[in-house]
Amino acid sequence: MIQNVYTRYGIVYIFRLNALMCGDNVQKHILGELEEELLALEEDLICWVDTNIELIRQPLKDMILSGGKRLRPAMVLAASRFGDYNFDKVRQLAVSVELIHMATLIHDDIIDDSPLRRGIPSLQSRLGKDVAVFAGDYVFCKVFELYAFSEHFNLLRIVAKTLHQICEGEIKQREDLFNTDLTFKDYIYRIRRKTAMLFALSAELGARASEASEKAVRALHRYGMYIGIAFQIVDDVLDFSSNNEKLGKPVGADIREGVITLPTIFTLKYSHQKDYLKEILSKGYLDEADAIKAVEIVKNSGGLDYAKHIAERYVYKAQQSIAPLPDIPIKKVLSNISNLIISRNQ
Amino acid sequence: MIQNVYTRYGIVYIFRLNALMCGDNVQKHILGELEEELLALEEDLICWVDTNIELIRQPLKDMILSGGKRLRPAMVLAASRFGDYNFDKVRQLAVSVELIHMATLIHDDIIDDSPLRRGIPSLQSRLGKDVAVFAGDYVFCKVFELYAFSEHFNLLRIVAKTLHQICEGEIKQREDLFNTDLTFKDYIYRIRRKTAMLFALSAELGARASEASEKAVRALHRYGMYIGIAFQIVDDVLDFSSNNEKLGKPVGADIREGVITLPTIFTLKYSHQKDYLKEILSKGYLDEADAIKAVEIVKNSGGLDYAKHIAERYVYKAQQSIAPLPDIPIKKVLSNISNLIISRNQ
Repeated sequence: MIQNVYTRYGIVYIFRLNALMCGDNVQKHILGELEEELLALEEDLICWVDTNIELIRQPLKDMILSGGKRLRPAMVLAASRFGDYNFDKVRQLAVSVELIHMATLIHDDIIDDSPLRRGIPSLQSRLGKDVAVFAGDYVFCKVFELYAFSEHFNLLRIVAKTLHQICEGEIKQREDLFNTDLTFKDYIYRIRRKTAMLFALSAELGARASEASEKAVRALHRYGMYIGIAFQIVDDVLDFSSNNEKLGKPVGADIREGVITLPTIFTLKYSHQKDYLKEILSKGYLDEADAIKAVEIVKNSGGLDYAKHIAERYVYKAQQSIAPLPDIPIKKVLSNISNLIISRNQ
Repeated sequence: MIQNVYTRYGIVYIFRLNALMCGDNVQKHILGELEEELLALEEDLICWVDTNIELIRQPLKDMILSGGKRLRPAMVLAASRFGDYNFDKVRQLAVSVELIHMATLIHDDIIDDSPLRRGIPSLQSRLGKDVAVFAGDYVFCKVFELYAFSEHFNLLRIVAKTLHQICEGEIKQREDLFNTDLTFKDYIYRIRRKTAMLFALSAELGARASEASEKAVRALHRYGMYIGIAFQIVDDVLDFSSNNEKLGKPVGADIREGVITLPTIFTLKYSHQKDYLKEILSKGYLDEADAIKAVEIVKNSGGLDYAKHIAERYVYKAQQSIAPLPDIPIKKVLSNISNLIISRNQ
């Protein structure tokens, strides 16, 4: 089956391999035995977003082809190894989590006004916000369809619950804009919903579909949750520390919009310039000079190192979660994923 | 059960009764025996959109309380009478179609920049487009959840297929903006997806859940489809003929945005001013003077009467579809709904 993909989808294969290898050497072979399966999923993803509506057909396909780390599908596939593993049983689940991720990215880009996504023009910058609203809905409908036509009715409830919580996390983020009283706990509450629950769901889906033990399901769910939290914290650090070119958006895009992330929370509590930062943020709008100043204050506060340290703690917690599970080869891959989360620079 | 609603949800009851009676007298008692059940559904709707995210909690509740005709739930309930009727078996399905409708309204209002919805500020004008994107997603997630926690797995496929087609219809509408070559067939293709399929789904869900005969299911599906087409045509006529106050948006909002509807298609083909209208629309943007002129041309072309006539034809086809079904009292309600579609003025 997978051999067929190589033959029929040579281009996809080569593309995907390049995506895994390019830029960040640490990604090379990091996914070990999962790589071939992930390549096969590329074909599935392209099929699932195919539509006869010309306006969105190519943009959706391009979005798939532009890569992405496919961490969530990798999580499904890895977790499924802890039970009675069968690729054909879990491949649709792996596709479903990537589609959920894709739908939220499309809607996120509308909110953030992002011109780029994975190095190519974002769907909203290509087709306008109006079409992007419905294109995101379309991908979301595909998730609904995927479950309707699969045999995974028993998993529908946990998927539905997670979707609901992801939405809550996204709205919570809007609710908390420019809120300088935000605590560490508030932040974790939000990113659990916005990001980590989809990682946790991915791991749980893989484990449940392959009928892993309840103990393994719980451990893998926890692993996904902690990895997801670490992932989002690193993302929030990169928003300050990466450069425009890599991000495809201005440095400090979050703080410019009023999104208070962990480095900012630290700064607002411990920096000697905390009052100044509070004053800037209390305006409820940052002009260019304010934004440059705010980014500088956060960068000088030690908030980025603090946040990275917290992310490492969560990665450690993730690794501890699966420590009691059987020592099968895939554990090395899960460990690689953990390290990738910390070391990624885009 | 329903009695309980009166006692416990007196306010909802009174509100709903007012909504049915106010303004348009033709609505009074039009839904006959369905009225009590529809009132009970108000409670379900409020429960389903309840959330602990403060930002959207009240706006979503207000959107439910602001009324709406609940035609789609009425269709579910009416169609279910042609089988082994059991209110508790179909109430969730009735809620689901109203939630689907609500989610699309929220996203539609973002696209249309609508300040009002059902006489109150639209969610996007109240909370901004950013929150409205995720609020629509949230309601949509609730539909997913509703099916996940119901016993209606067997109906999931037709729901999923319809959702997919609704999205396609919405995107098609964006694709066809300012397209003066649009044909009658293109228009019907689009409104079938955008509007009519949800009516058809509603009727089919009610019929299937109550295990009506396959013949009845097909007839009711057709009825819903034709009613839905008529509904959208009348909507498109009202966009030209109603007044600002009733619509909550400027007269001719569709043509201002470049949405080509049936009256405009007629005008572009038969009016002596068709070339002038084409010239205005070919700019791809209408300023106020253009918009006033375009509306005037369409109104003077006979296009509104033509479109109303076509809507009447579809209502007739709808009634013909269910003519062979058993003469049970609910047929009178379905006939009332058909007439309401034609005679409504907002």
